[in-house]
Amino acid sequence: MGSVLNLMNHMETTDLLNQFLAIRNRSEELCANLLTEDYVVQPAEFVSPPKWHLGHTTWFFETFLLQQKPGYTLFDPQYNFVFNSYYESVGARVIRTDRGNLSRPSVADVYAYRKHVDVCMFDWLDQWSAQEPLRDLLLLGLQHEQQHQELLLTDIKYILGHNPLFPPYDLAYKEKEDFSGSASAFIHVQEGLYEIGFTGEGFCYDNEQGRHQVWLNGFDMAAQLVTNAEYLEFIEAGGYRDFTHWHAEGWDWVRKEGIQAPLYWHEIEGKWMTYTLGGLRHLDPNSLLCHVSFYEAAAFASWKGMRLPTEQEWEVAAGIFDWGRRWEWTNSAYLPYPGFRKAEGAIGEYNGKFMVNQMVLRGASDATPAGHSRMTYRNFFHASTRWQYTGIRLVK
Amino acid sequence: MGSVLNLMNHMETTDLLNQFLAIRNRSEELCANLLTEDYVVQPAEFVSPPKWHLGHTTWFFETFLLQQKPGYTLFDPQYNFVFNSYYESVGARVIRTDRGNLSRPSVADVYAYRKHVDVCMFDWLDQWSAQEPLRDLLLLGLQHEQQHQELLLTDIKYILGHNPLFPPYDLAYKEKEDFSGSASAFIHVQEGLYEIGFTGEGFCYDNEQGRHQVWLNGFDMAAQLVTNAEYLEFIEAGGYRDFTHWHAEGWDWVRKEGIQAPLYWHEIEGKWMTYTLGGLRHLDPNSLLCHVSFYEAAAFASWKGMRLPTEQEWEVAAGIFDWGRRWEWTNSAYLPYPGFRKAEGAIGEYNGKFMVNQMVLRGASDATPAGHSRMTYRNFFHASTRWQYTGIRLVK
Amino acid sequence: MGSVLNLMNHMETTDLLNQFLAIRNRSEELCANLLTEDYVVQPAEFVSPPKWHLGHTTWFFETFLLQQKPGYTLFDPQYNFVFNSYYESVGARVIRTDRGNLSRPSVADVYAYRKHVDVCMFDWLDQWSAQEPLRDLLLLGLQHEQQHQELLLTDIKYILGHNPLFPPYDLAYKEKEDFSGSASAFIHVQEGLYEIGFTGEGFCYDNEQGRHQVWLNGFDMAAQLVTNAEYLEFIEAGGYRDFTHWHAEGWDWVRKEGIQAPLYWHEIEGKWMTYTLGGLRHLDPNSLLCHVSFYEAAAFASWKGMRLPTEQEWEVAAGIFDWGRRWEWTNSAYLPYPGFRKAEGAIGEYNGKFMVNQMVLRGASDATPAGHSRMTYRNFFHASTRWQYTGIRLVK
Amino acid sequence: MGSVLNLMNHMETTDLLNQFLAIRNRSEELCANLLTEDYVVQPAEFVSPPKWHLGHTTWFFETFLLQQKPGYTLFDPQYNFVFNSYYESVGARVIRTDRGNLSRPSVADVYAYRKHVDVCMFDWLDQWSAQEPLRDLLLLGLQHEQQHQELLLTDIKYILGHNPLFPPYDLAYKEKEDFSGSASAFIHVQEGLYEIGFTGEGFCYDNEQGRHQVWLNGFDMAAQLVTNAEYLEFIEAGGYRDFTHWHAEGWDWVRKEGIQAPLYWHEIEGKWMTYTLGGLRHLDPNSLLCHVSFYEAAAFASWKGMRLPTEQEWEVAAGIFDWGRRWEWTNSAYLPYPGFRKAEGAIGEYNGKFMVNQMVLRGASDATPAGHSRMTYRNFFHASTRWQYTGIRLVK
Repeated sequence: MGSVLNLMNHMETTDLLNQFLAIRNRSEELCANLLTEDYVVQPAEFVSPPKWHLGHTTWFFETFLLQQKPGYTLFDPQYNFVFNSYYESVGARVIRTDRGNLSRPSVADVYAYRKHVDVCMFDWLDQWSAQEPLRDLLLLGLQHEQQHQELLLTDIKYILGHNPLFPPYDLAYKEKEDFSGSASAFIHVQEGLYEIGFTGEGFCYDNEQGRHQVWLNGFDMAAQLVTNAEYLEFIEAGGYRDFTHWHAEGWDWVRKEGIQAPLYWHEIEGKWMTYTLGGLRHLDPNSLLCHVSFYEAAAFASWKGMRLPTEQEWEVAAGIFDWGRRWEWTNSAYLPYPGFRKAEGAIGEYNGKFMVNQMVLRGASDATPAGHSRMTYRNFFHASTRWQYTGIRLVK
Repeated sequence: MGSVLNLMNHMETTDLLNQFLAIRNRSEELCANLLTEDYVVQPAEFVSPPKWHLGHTTWFFETFLLQQKPGYTLFDPQYNFVFNSYYESVGARVIRTDRGNLSRPSVADVYAYRKHVDVCMFDWLDQWSAQEPLRDLLLLGLQHEQQHQELLLTDIKYILGHNPLFPPYDLAYKEKEDFSGSASAFIHVQEGLYEIGFTGEGFCYDNEQGRHQVWLNGFDMAAQLVTNAEYLEFIEAGGYRDFTHWHAEGWDWVRKEGIQAPLYWHEIEGKWMTYTLGGLRHLDPNSLLCHVSFYEAAAFASWKGMRLPTEQEWEVAAGIFDWGRRWEWTNSAYLPYPGFRKAEGAIGEYNGKFMVNQMVLRGASDATPAGHSRMTYRNFFHASTRWQYTGIRLVK
Repeated sequence: MGSVLNLMNHMETTDLLNQFLAIRNRSEELCANLLTEDYVVQPAEFVSPPKWHLGHTTWFFETFLLQQKPGYTLFDPQYNFVFNSYYESVGARVIRTDRGNLSRPSVADVYAYRKHVDVCMFDWLDQWSAQEPLRDLLLLGLQHEQQHQELLLTDIKYILGHNPLFPPYDLAYKEKEDFSGSASAFIHVQEGLYEIGFTGEGFCYDNEQGRHQVWLNGFDMAAQLVTNAEYLEFIEAGGYRDFTHWHAEGWDWVRKEGIQAPLYWHEIEGKWMTYTLGGLRHLDPNSLLCHVSFYEAAAFASWKGMRLPTEQEWEVAAGIFDWGRRWEWTNSAYLPYPGFRKAEGAIGEYNGKFMVNQMVLRGASDATPAGHSRMTYRNFFHASTRWQYTGIRLVK
Repeated sequence: MGSVLNLMNHMETTDLLNQFLAIRNRSEELCANLLTEDYVVQPAEFVSPPKWHLGHTTWFFETFLLQQKPGYTLFDPQYNFVFNSYYESVGARVIRTDRGNLSRPSVADVYAYRKHVDVCMFDWLDQWSAQEPLRDLLLLGLQHEQQHQELLLTDIKYILGHNPLFPPYDLAYKEKEDFSGSASAFIHVQEGLYEIGFTGEGFCYDNEQGRHQVWLNGFDMAAQLVTNAEYLEFIEAGGYRDFTHWHAEGWDWVRKEGIQAPLYWHEIEGKWMTYTLGGLRHLDPNSLLCHVSFYEAAAFASWKGMRLPTEQEWEVAAGIFDWGRRWEWTNSAYLPYPGFRKAEGAIGEYNGKFMVNQMVLRGASDATPAGHSRMTYRNFFHASTRWQYTGIRLVK
């Protein structure tokens, strides 16, 4: 496991129990406003039904931990088939696009499954010593559930935001992040040898490990993320109708999908509206732009005569500016750090198998659970992805 | 309307009210065993979520009747968009494949919608005289709801029967129909001029009207439908691996879809099982075969050295044998009877627009509401359809 | 073979030899204007490269006749794989869409193959007696080649007519057929029992056999086919933008394919042009409409308040009007006549396996080889087909 | 143009003329063995018909150079539509998949076009001074034609190698490269700061420019490429049936495409054969492996417990080992070097627009024109590409 995550040996058992409970409860709190029907549907291949997220994160604890507990019996042997995701080594997987067709197990069944696993885990954790080697797997399971909490919220947004009735998730929800800086401020970083990758104590993923040196040329990085108003200029200047600033593949995507604006933007009777978790609202020009793909981010940057940062530039500069309000597209492909090796067994599938044709995002978003991200965290998605809270930081 | 349905002027208002209530209640009874989740999903393009059936049949009464009632206000103006089906003249339709993505309106909303429409209809019906011209539309709405009751049940079977947990709809449900005749009995019909098409009083669809003469050669029609045992012989003789008896298009379907047996048949550890509304059960060789496509029906008939009946032959012979236990594929394409004309307006879309590339089925099934079918009734589906209760009657 | 074709026992051997030579030469004459490159391409799945037609018709004689000749050796054993079409019983077929990818066998190879087979056939035919049982297969092979001559010409039109340079096939070619009758003339046919199907001597296909009685209601059939001018009215009245008159499936086709006019019609700088085998020309309003699908034919008829004839009506009336200038869509599905049985073996695949989801066309066209059609001839294509010379005759 | 290519001012005009003639002739020599039919077909979307390559390279000179020559008239104004490729700024492009449907312009037309452009260019070049600013564009055009020569040969291989007759391109052609080193030899490179990117005189592409420093950890790189024998061990060990060593996307590719061996490998009666430009031959275990995708290269490396080099590691080590026998997959995504900027105008589309979802290959192959590659050359293809001569070099 040493190559998958960084050890965190000194946490007290009580702290561990509290953290387990807090994170498990948080997933259910995120669903408190849902109707049963909202848990079931899958309006796009990349979206998972909420009940699947609740089941899958539970399956992780049952499969990788509880199955090692003496005397444990599976809640339902068929759940491995239903709630497995991409862990090929654990059994045949459900075809991802089929998730939205399964009315059973019911939402009530899934909550019963969660309760069963939580009770079994809780009883077991109570007996663990501080040196228990399973702690690392437990921490990975909690990080995994936090990752799914972000997906859960963005999938819920997609499910409700693609319903013709535009039902709000929570009328009081406020996504807006007012812009409060100088749009023209750029931070200069000098050329030199820098260190990249995780260091210190606490949890990290295997893909952040292997701290290593990189040589960077000097660069200027924007202190602020791009706002809706800046992006509207791009739209109004015909940015979606002129191939000049697009990658060839991005331009194909624009034409094939008929893309004309960021996801959730609707021009209704001449006014720009946007669907938020609080419902359909007027677009605030001063808010930070989000829900753009890498293709859109790169085209916008090119149109501005600038570029996106590399993930190394971002990590070096992140100590200076205020990050964490939106996932930020970098111009770095998701590739292994020097010395990266996949772990043995099913856990080894966690990150390495995705290291082709994905772009790195750095930062965090409103939807990221508190404490889940860090300056060395490497998020990654395909260049066409837009349903996450993804924004743009420019470099010149 | 004269061309769409046959008038039925003499029904008493009280009878009409009772029939309205009985049919409306029946749709809800069919769903009594469902979980909320079961109402929502759409595992195939040709399946509709149960809540859509409940909403769509209600929308029919609201759109074609209540909107003519003075002072009526729509339950929700957006429901026309959600619950319309193929009635192009009434407004933009939801793309059919999207039905399974909509978590809202909720199941509770749909039941509230039904209640609202039922109350408004009931109040209104009470005031109708026996000569009320809207009666024909009402009767069409009731027939329409009965048609959807059959689809509702077969769609529920598809939803539960394609779930990896194979949940039963009703453990006590018995689909089996024991075979109780002589397999070798054939009924001879002599050549001559016969009359085809609806006659008499009571309701009929526009596609049955225009009673007309046809000349038929003599033929021998099986008194019984084909059984599972007979079809198993075809499978064991390699019927699905030899193109000889298949239509070219049917053979492409077999190969592309990997078809090896009727729908819902599973060979598990060397035994044939079949999913029924009562759950997964051993295949009964003496039961009547069902869930075969036209392609399978035609290939089986060819392998037996026989053929399927035409719909005219079927209608002429139906007075002699015992029909109504399974929809029976005929070798007739669904085409207009002499003198057929589409009605004006939205109602005109009901039947005529489907008169290309569909095959006629005659009879009825367990899932057909009592009294909904008749000897002149023309059901029709595409040749690849198998999720209805479709069986085979041979002619030689 | 009795069920596949009608015997034609009394043709002299000399006549047979002359007919063989004439038909074989005709295929090559049709290609005289082609460049080598034109023989190779396949711009749509339903089009075959000209060299494939030349090879496939030759393969028919080699496979079904010459292989029965003592001492015959195959020209190239691999050609069965390349030039077989849908005859499943003769060997694995090339996937139809792949035909346009094969640069070899070359055009020169195909002509050498033709020459080889022609010489072997000619030598052999010379020895046949008038009672030779192979004569029926020979006649079928010649009819088969004539069928392919029509496809060859319409495929060539498609290949050249979809090239951005619009090269003419033959500048002198004149497709135009001036209209010279009264548009309002309708012929009345009285109700009664009629006989349908082939009778007499000479060749016919199995699908025309089984002459049988049908009862027809009285009808009025147009003496003339629809002209371009009449169809332009339909276009100008918004016929392609209003679903009212379309089959549901036809309307989906219009929208998905973006259909706005018959095939080969181009509106260029406000004028209607049409690609003909003589090159791109101004549309002649008085010419007979062609290159419409069944969907378009049916929608046009409905818009006129009329309908298409059934194939039985057409056959009964054809003795009265002047037919043979365009294939005419009927509203009859392609189904077996009473008593139809597929022949044994590969020849049995000739017609019967296509008897689902196709519509019957009656008549003939400019591209039909002289003498190849007759009043009882049943041509058939899928409802979306337009690259044949297909027109409309109305019934009221 | 300074950002697109490196200036090469001192070449004498005579040398330029000779180089122009030599490269233009070379393209035609490569086609000397083709039949007319071979020039026309496009058996896969990523393959272009040979006549298109001949026309497109000619179109480049006509469009970017001759159109600046006073008094020049286009050979055929429609050729811009036919022979443009992805240069969006020059006009509407032919949909790439359509290239194989165009029988015209004929092969003879394309050769006439080449002759016309060559004569006009030659006359014009003769008048150029050594300082002529168009020289850079000319050099780019020549490099462009050389790139297409490699594609031309690999496309021809694909066309002939996917024909069921397996016609040889040239019976005397010898692709085999015997292995003549020690398989276990690895070259060690020490950690440190290195310089990457083009330096010196002569031509280079914009994507190689911007020489810059990189910090590399120490590594050991194989002195030899992987052989067929080594790869056969992977196949025999079940490498294509076990997901463990594959990227998730690579594994999907293996299953969806049914991949079981490198491209052009056929297991015939228990023996491995491979299609080469000399025809179908027995696989030589000692030859260098080629025609593998990045997915296969990465899976093989993982199975060996090693990895692929980064492009920086490759460039640093390339001075030591003997490179140039196969394009070698690196584990680097194709991304801009520091300071990269797209050139203005159509030429700016040359490289930068492809910088997403492609992997870098380094080296050269048999098919690479002499002198066309260099140690800093960055070739790039999508991870699934296999029809180029692509091989594997391991790093541990």
